[in-house]
Amino acid sequence: MNTPPVHAPMDQFSRRDDGQLMVGGVPLSQLAERIGQTPFYAVDRGLLRQRVTQLRAALPKSIELHYAMKANPMPALVALMATLVDGIDVASAGELKIALDAGADPAEISFAGPGKREIELRQALAAGVLVNVESPREVELLARLSQELGLPARIALRVNPDFELKGSGMKMGGGPKQFGIDAEVLPELLARIDALGLGFEGFHLFAGSQNLRAEAICEAQRKSYELALRLAQGSRQPVRFLNLGGGFGIPYFPGEQRLDIAPIAENLAALAERAQRELPQAALVIELGRYLVGEAGLYVTRVVDRKVSRGQVFLVTDGGLNHHLAASGNFGQVIRKNYPVTIGNRRPDAASESTMVVGPLCTPMDLLAERMVLPCAEPGDLVVIFQSGAYGASASPQGFLGHPGCVEVLV
Amino acid sequence: MNTPPVHAPMDQFSRRDDGQLMVGGVPLSQLAERIGQTPFYAVDRGLLRQRVTQLRAALPKSIELHYAMKANPMPALVALMATLVDGIDVASAGELKIALDAGADPAEISFAGPGKREIELRQALAAGVLVNVESPREVELLARLSQELGLPARIALRVNPDFELKGSGMKMGGGPKQFGIDAEVLPELLARIDALGLGFEGFHLFAGSQNLRAEAICEAQRKSYELALRLAQGSRQPVRFLNLGGGFGIPYFPGEQRLDIAPIAENLAALAERAQRELPQAALVIELGRYLVGEAGLYVTRVVDRKVSRGQVFLVTDGGLNHHLAASGNFGQVIRKNYPVTIGNRRPDAASESTMVVGPLCTPMDLLAERMVLPCAEPGDLVVIFQSGAYGASASPQGFLGHPGCVEVLV
Repeated sequence: MNTPPVHAPMDQFSRRDDGQLMVGGVPLSQLAERIGQTPFYAVDRGLLRQRVTQLRAALPKSIELHYAMKANPMPALVALMATLVDGIDVASAGELKIALDAGADPAEISFAGPGKREIELRQALAAGVLVNVESPREVELLARLSQELGLPARIALRVNPDFELKGSGMKMGGGPKQFGIDAEVLPELLARIDALGLGFEGFHLFAGSQNLRAEAICEAQRKSYELALRLAQGSRQPVRFLNLGGGFGIPYFPGEQRLDIAPIAENLAALAERAQRELPQAALVIELGRYLVGEAGLYVTRVVDRKVSRGQVFLVTDGGLNHHLAASGNFGQVIRKNYPVTIGNRRPDAASESTMVVGPLCTPMDLLAERMVLPCAEPGDLVVIFQSGAYGASASPQGFLGHPGCVEVLV
Repeated sequence: MNTPPVHAPMDQFSRRDDGQLMVGGVPLSQLAERIGQTPFYAVDRGLLRQRVTQLRAALPKSIELHYAMKANPMPALVALMATLVDGIDVASAGELKIALDAGADPAEISFAGPGKREIELRQALAAGVLVNVESPREVELLARLSQELGLPARIALRVNPDFELKGSGMKMGGGPKQFGIDAEVLPELLARIDALGLGFEGFHLFAGSQNLRAEAICEAQRKSYELALRLAQGSRQPVRFLNLGGGFGIPYFPGEQRLDIAPIAENLAALAERAQRELPQAALVIELGRYLVGEAGLYVTRVVDRKVSRGQVFLVTDGGLNHHLAASGNFGQVIRKNYPVTIGNRRPDAASESTMVVGPLCTPMDLLAERMVLPCAEPGDLVVIFQSGAYGASASPQGFLGHPGCVEVLV
């Protein structure tokens, strides 16, 4: 007989004997009192540090670790991450501001994104950050703005590779894409950059995201490296920066397992060794967002009402898709599946029941857990959604239906 | 040979001979200058008035028209709607504030939503609005708060009917639901309301939304009426308010046609006639959000870059899913389809090409039009998404990736 798939254990957070989930050493109910409101997101800074430490211990020393702050742009978190990683990747001038405020070194900030506006490129030049150029237009614009401002442009080329990251949640390379520049037209653009006298620093390749298959990530890294090596021959300037992308996934749904880092570390060690010979001036970078912060964060919302409708228990909470769109299944998912959810102030071995957890919005989309077996809960109890450190508050329609926004804390 | 389905004509907006789309009498490019930025939402107040006028002309005089402001809570729009309709339906204390600021008469405001917090119920009592109660807990809480505050509670019961609205975009009644109270347990709650001495005014039934089949809507209205009539017998207080819900859809996707109002008007006339005899004190209300405002609004975003990747044209715009999640296909849709899109400053009969319109975000989800044939466009041109007057700005993750928010104007 087949047993249904289950969620990976959420053992990064411990429980006190009375069932209180511990966040940064604080029992959840006490944390809620300290914050003074629900709903909130809480990210455990110890878990952030632990993830970076473990990753660095596994990876070759020479690999540089960047944080893609689009995953979680909370200023306090970005400030902490800036002390832990080797660089911050920003996706807009808004993110650039947060990174600079957080004390990130502009020399170690890179800026990617299709459709950068002129004002954003001016800001990037004035800040002195690396621009991952995504189109010929951006090259011409940077050349003009660099002259106007009397400031050097720092350029890396974002490449739309001629392959895909297999089995990714989201494919971002291969075929026709809005991201980057087709690999086959890059030599021309490299020549143009040289002709314009612009500073070229390297390449950015990003094949896809949220991948849980180590072998697929290794393959994408190898192909990215090979492609960059080939492309490097078209530049008179040496490659000093080679961003091999990220794509490291975390387990969200039943049946998903944590990514095995060992084969990726081995693969990167081999690439780092080749790079020493073949691209001796290049720093090899991996850019991670979700993988660094996703598992360290919780979304916490309080039960407002417990209803039974035609035999089915509903817990109605004070937050929902307005704060956590992804957990409702409306952020890139085709088929809705449950995130790992628990009652954060009750023992997991308490009497349980099959429960629907829904938010307060007047829409059936506002669903946080569908028929999950959870400890029996009452108004006042705290529903916790794990794996919520990335693409949470910032990726949700906070204004929808006029409910209060959520708070974010780093504990 | 089958021709592929096309979008319903978006002829509510006219074009000047040079191709400029006209919004409230202003050419689109001029409007963009007046606003001083893109992206923006623009709602045409003439079209709002026209929709209400046409609907009133079609419907029996005795039917009251409510605006469900969750569809578009922009304050200026709510203020205009408050002058056009007979009541405003709010879904949170945040919306209640906007409705009151807009000058809506509290006597004609009703408040629905599962999981109303105590503070929200206090606010509703203090404002003197009708509360559509969704659970036994809310009844008990209103009784206590009414005593505490020395203010009368005005209660309608939201019913979870024992049928569904067939062919709805979203089903909100029938089976186990978080919305309302199961029809079969209502008599008990009515008795409790009488026992508590609370003011009971009527019923709220809402079977589903975004329905384009008049017959399904008529059937739901008939069944809702019959159910309310049956339930009314359990109350000692007369029914003075009967909200038959809404569900009127608008055409978004290729192949969808505008809803035929005539049979609905006929159906409501028959119900109004019955109500005169059977529920002589009851106002019959229909509650519409999207149908009243959706077709009057546009989302406008400027082309920042035009790229060709492996033969495919991409227009990269300065706004995308961060402002208009629904148009990206990530708001309740299972299969992504294109909204009606045009280039708002070019003649529709100009030379055209198959185009991908994408926003500036670093995610493949940020897609506004997939392989649509549009007039050839360049940076600076204005991409327009029609049918954007409802569930636009407020239903989108404005903070995502740190790009500027959008502006909303009523023209």
